[in-house]
Amino acid sequence: MSSVLVISGSPSRTSKTERIGEHVAQRLAAADRSVEHLRVRTLPAEALLGADTRDPAIADATASVAEADGIVLATPTYKAAYSGLLKTFLDLLPQFGFAGKAVLPLATGGTVAHVLAIDYALRPVVHSLGARHAVQSFFLLDKHLSVVGDQLSVHPDSAEPLTDVIEQFTKALDGVPHATVLGRSA
Amino acid sequence: MSSVLVISGSPSRTSKTERIGEHVAQRLAAADRSVEHLRVRTLPAEALLGADTRDPAIADATASVAEADGIVLATPTYKAAYSGLLKTFLDLLPQFGFAGKAVLPLATGGTVAHVLAIDYALRPVVHSLGARHAVQSFFLLDKHLSVVGDQLSVHPDSAEPLTDVIEQFTKALDGVPHATVLGRSA
Amino acid sequence: MSSVLVISGSPSRTSKTERIGEHVAQRLAAADRSVEHLRVRTLPAEALLGADTRDPAIADATASVAEADGIVLATPTYKAAYSGLLKTFLDLLPQFGFAGKAVLPLATGGTVAHVLAIDYALRPVVHSLGARHAVQSFFLLDKHLSVVGDQLSVHPDSAEPLTDVIEQFTKALDGVPHATVLGRSA
Amino acid sequence: MSSVLVISGSPSRTSKTERIGEHVAQRLAAADRSVEHLRVRTLPAEALLGADTRDPAIADATASVAEADGIVLATPTYKAAYSGLLKTFLDLLPQFGFAGKAVLPLATGGTVAHVLAIDYALRPVVHSLGARHAVQSFFLLDKHLSVVGDQLSVHPDSAEPLTDVIEQFTKALDGVPHATVLGRSA
Repeated sequence: MSSVLVISGSPSRTSKTERIGEHVAQRLAAADRSVEHLRVRTLPAEALLGADTRDPAIADATASVAEADGIVLATPTYKAAYSGLLKTFLDLLPQFGFAGKAVLPLATGGTVAHVLAIDYALRPVVHSLGARHAVQSFFLLDKHLSVVGDQLSVHPDSAEPLTDVIEQFTKALDGVPHATVLGRSA
Repeated sequence: MSSVLVISGSPSRTSKTERIGEHVAQRLAAADRSVEHLRVRTLPAEALLGADTRDPAIADATASVAEADGIVLATPTYKAAYSGLLKTFLDLLPQFGFAGKAVLPLATGGTVAHVLAIDYALRPVVHSLGARHAVQSFFLLDKHLSVVGDQLSVHPDSAEPLTDVIEQFTKALDGVPHATVLGRSA
Repeated sequence: MSSVLVISGSPSRTSKTERIGEHVAQRLAAADRSVEHLRVRTLPAEALLGADTRDPAIADATASVAEADGIVLATPTYKAAYSGLLKTFLDLLPQFGFAGKAVLPLATGGTVAHVLAIDYALRPVVHSLGARHAVQSFFLLDKHLSVVGDQLSVHPDSAEPLTDVIEQFTKALDGVPHATVLGRSA
Repeated sequence: MSSVLVISGSPSRTSKTERIGEHVAQRLAAADRSVEHLRVRTLPAEALLGADTRDPAIADATASVAEADGIVLATPTYKAAYSGLLKTFLDLLPQFGFAGKAVLPLATGGTVAHVLAIDYALRPVVHSLGARHAVQSFFLLDKHLSVVGDQLSVHPDSAEPLTDVIEQFTKALDGVPHATVLGRSA
């Protein structure tokens, strides 16, 4: 069973970014993946900003990255790019911390005018970390996400493409190793 | 047998970009892929610049893209980005002209100071074309490429990582569809 | 009197990109600048794609760049970036071909989803050419541009910010040298 | 007298990034500018990561940005981009927090392979903040910076271009407003 770490990088506890991260985590768990959700805002602030990788919570978090087969990145769009908070965590990873992994980049934002930030800003960072397969990214308009009770509701215009990128991601997760397993098992 | 189209985008007939494109084409052919090499500079100039997709040579070239399972892009680095020549051809493709395809982005350049151009400039274009899997890119220093007789020689410092990205690309080519075929055939 | 070269990079003779280039050219001329408009599509195609800088028309065009105090770049947005056609011309310029110059980057496109292409893709190219001052860029929605008779009409939502960037550009044109002249003349 | 805020974004107290920030601050002060140096790592970590703009130290820092005529950004290069730490602070600024300001982007890094990060990653963020004039950026190789006693020594290969960008920045600072003042005073 492949494992996935969702990393959400919003400073706000009530953010739609964190909720979409959790939503994707639950869908992947329902599809028989082992899933963890790391909310970067819950890491100890001083250790994170001071790049103190010996802090136990930081060390746990970077170990979770190392062990995951796949990574989902969920970031709000601030100043035409990913959040600084998300990047403070990525900065702590080893040079090729995403080597061998599949990555799904997700962003939320208030206007489609920021759609390209994810491919122009976040994707190069993902590749500098050595990702094996960063699938097509997806940008979610804030207004397409609403919270009813405890449940996140995704507007139909975003729901279908979201399902599509999640499917691409799970295929990428399975990727070559999964194919080999199939071959062997056949 | 999966098929690959190498697209090289140097204006010069003697360029190292075109030679590395041909070099990769031959290696993929030797690995039992069906390979074509499109040198964009050989397309009819007026039709290319005028975006005349009805021109027979242009139509052939865009059909080759449509039919390929994988695309190798080889570009020189000019003005901190890909060549305009390469982009004139990519501009002619349909909006999601790389959908379902694996892509290997390669660049040549005179200085490592331009390494990031490939991930910051070319990769977002590749993803806007809907590529299924754009593997890790590779930047080749001009001085690592030398021509002896008719043969391209790649400096050992570049030869190993080049072999690695070609291998990643062939794995991506096989990707999910190939795995499915294996599954079915088993 | 400072001089400006408008460079428009659409392959189409009837494009809104070319019209907005001409519109800006006329406004700058009306503000007592010496203005030329280079439509890259009118350059000889073979020479342009072959990077033949000895071709007389190409040589004239690159000389116009060298002599201008300011450059306006007008490009359509294709595949989440500037047009290949525009870039084929920029590729012919000397390494620091924009040194000492003010630059105004303009783009047209069908959706605001491409707004960031101008800052993430075109601006780094402008700076690799050594521009002294690349002012805030502006993205014009196609639907904000309409042609009535021979006249381009700009939708009010775009007209005001366009006026603003033109004003910033003319200030940048005057920049330090103009200030010095004022000082001397005083 | 125009005022400048240097913002350095390294998590380390002994970083060369912070030292080059201080070095530039001193040179600008020596050239009769009013200069402050904000080391982002000294801001309260919880408030910074939680985007708490009511925290007094954060409020002071953002007020310093608002009051400055010019901004120098000094960042280490991590994962092919600016530091997350720097970005956490920029994320707190108002949408057009750099409106009317001149900006000098500086980066340090271990290899020239990261040179383009500053123009492809940081510059679009600077422009999204509405900067009036972001001058040519400069990338300093770590090995070109050495510390002797308390003094930073810049290798001759970097010293001259650094002087040049500082000069461009001071010209940009004076820019149009300064020119106007000269005109009035004449």
